[in-house]
Amino acid sequence: MSTKIAFIGLGIMGLPMAKNLVSAGHQVTGYNRSPEKAERLALAGGAAASSVAEAVRGAEVIITMVPDSPDVEAVMLDEDGVLAHAEPGATWIDHSTIRPDVAVQVAQKAREAGLKPLDAPVSGGEQGAIDGALSIMVGGEQTDFEAVQDVFEGVGKTIVLVGPAGSGQTVKAANQLIVAGNIGLLAEAVLFLEAYGVDTGSALQVLGGGLAGSKVLDQKGQKMLDRSFDPGFRLELHHKDMGIVTSAAREAGVVIPLASTVAQLIASTVQRGDGGLDHSGLFTVLEDLGGRNGTTS
Amino acid sequence: MSTKIAFIGLGIMGLPMAKNLVSAGHQVTGYNRSPEKAERLALAGGAAASSVAEAVRGAEVIITMVPDSPDVEAVMLDEDGVLAHAEPGATWIDHSTIRPDVAVQVAQKAREAGLKPLDAPVSGGEQGAIDGALSIMVGGEQTDFEAVQDVFEGVGKTIVLVGPAGSGQTVKAANQLIVAGNIGLLAEAVLFLEAYGVDTGSALQVLGGGLAGSKVLDQKGQKMLDRSFDPGFRLELHHKDMGIVTSAAREAGVVIPLASTVAQLIASTVQRGDGGLDHSGLFTVLEDLGGRNGTTS
Repeated sequence: MSTKIAFIGLGIMGLPMAKNLVSAGHQVTGYNRSPEKAERLALAGGAAASSVAEAVRGAEVIITMVPDSPDVEAVMLDEDGVLAHAEPGATWIDHSTIRPDVAVQVAQKAREAGLKPLDAPVSGGEQGAIDGALSIMVGGEQTDFEAVQDVFEGVGKTIVLVGPAGSGQTVKAANQLIVAGNIGLLAEAVLFLEAYGVDTGSALQVLGGGLAGSKVLDQKGQKMLDRSFDPGFRLELHHKDMGIVTSAAREAGVVIPLASTVAQLIASTVQRGDGGLDHSGLFTVLEDLGGRNGTTS
Repeated sequence: MSTKIAFIGLGIMGLPMAKNLVSAGHQVTGYNRSPEKAERLALAGGAAASSVAEAVRGAEVIITMVPDSPDVEAVMLDEDGVLAHAEPGATWIDHSTIRPDVAVQVAQKAREAGLKPLDAPVSGGEQGAIDGALSIMVGGEQTDFEAVQDVFEGVGKTIVLVGPAGSGQTVKAANQLIVAGNIGLLAEAVLFLEAYGVDTGSALQVLGGGLAGSKVLDQKGQKMLDRSFDPGFRLELHHKDMGIVTSAAREAGVVIPLASTVAQLIASTVQRGDGGLDHSGLFTVLEDLGGRNGTTS
């Protein structure tokens, strides 16, 4: 089934996702603040719009993929935004990672404007976006979710409805909490092993085979041993996400001592000017805390 | 190749490991302070000794599997211990989880007494011990390690030499650091998700499919949702191990803020009298910190 889709926000994640929707047979019109990205979508078989209004005209599904909560509010609520121009009855899918409370508020306004809102943040990174293999955690109504299943299948593999509006963002926040913490713990373990002169490659192999095994260990362990922190997912974005999860936990009265500590460590990397490193670069601040930078092999 | 093995310490882990060595064709003589365990090994085709001296007489490989550092020191160094009675040239494999510095010291004394010491703590729990599927992280000499490969293969699957004497214990300490932290982070994430009314079963499914995925999430997530904390690996033992890793990190000048925090949280569970719970029961102290005990579904 071919769906008429507006795709707003064609960045590192958005552009390959929009291209995959074109490949899946959908009619995709893209809009981006810097217009050359929309031209790249047009070259791949989509269409380029020069405004949000033009992009959403006649669209059955409107997708947003922008950096942060204020960006979603602006693109949806401004007078030249989505709600002012979308066709009533269209489904709005927000793939951005934003605050759950903002997701709930904007979803409510979208519903009042006659749209069907789904918050649907993704996990899997740029490679997952290119491969169409993202995990998608969706908040919203069951019937709205089911009606756009084929659109989700154009960009993702593990697609799960986790609860009402905002729930997708809540699960994404939990995802970022676990990932950040697992990175920090792996960094502490690697520094500990190096300090004792252990064969760290062999150690990571045996650790990965037991209860300490994780996707973070598999994907980030060698980067730490190599001191190779090219992004990947940048620390400055994980810093934004830790702000979301610590704030949302406080709102809900949930006490998260480990996540709060790792949030502070990530904040330190950003303050040091290392926010452009991959999030595994959290290693560097732990290395420096122990005065070990440059002293280990 | 059948090896004459003395197995000292026939507890929850030691007895099934000794039985697996019998099944693998080795001649295994067991000793345990409470003698009924040795009788159970004898019923399974091994032999029961009534003293360490009797157990190690003529043994080519001497295995110890006891709870803590002082237990290893006692069984090895006391006047009725292993070093006083072992045949020179025998290999000593210590499967216990103890302090790396104590492992190094006792290994040195064992070498002076003519033994070949290997520190070889295991990961995989009681089920891994029963199934002969443990991960074994070994510290010692390459030639000593290779000479007893068939003995290791009787109890484990992933068997890795990670460095010189003490290195096995260092890697095990890193293992316990990561596992404890991953449990704590998962507990914080689950409490966060519950507070927001998310479908936690679906959430864990989608989290497990992405970068947040881990063995801890797979094996402990449902136990947290169910509030089912039967051991498994007891918190009081993980508390002992966090003492090892925090102390060893301090000795080496490695700063581990996340592991130190989780060590304090585990200490709290033990102080509350919950040391007998599975280590996933760390959840309970985080739940109580947020005042959520009994308030969530």
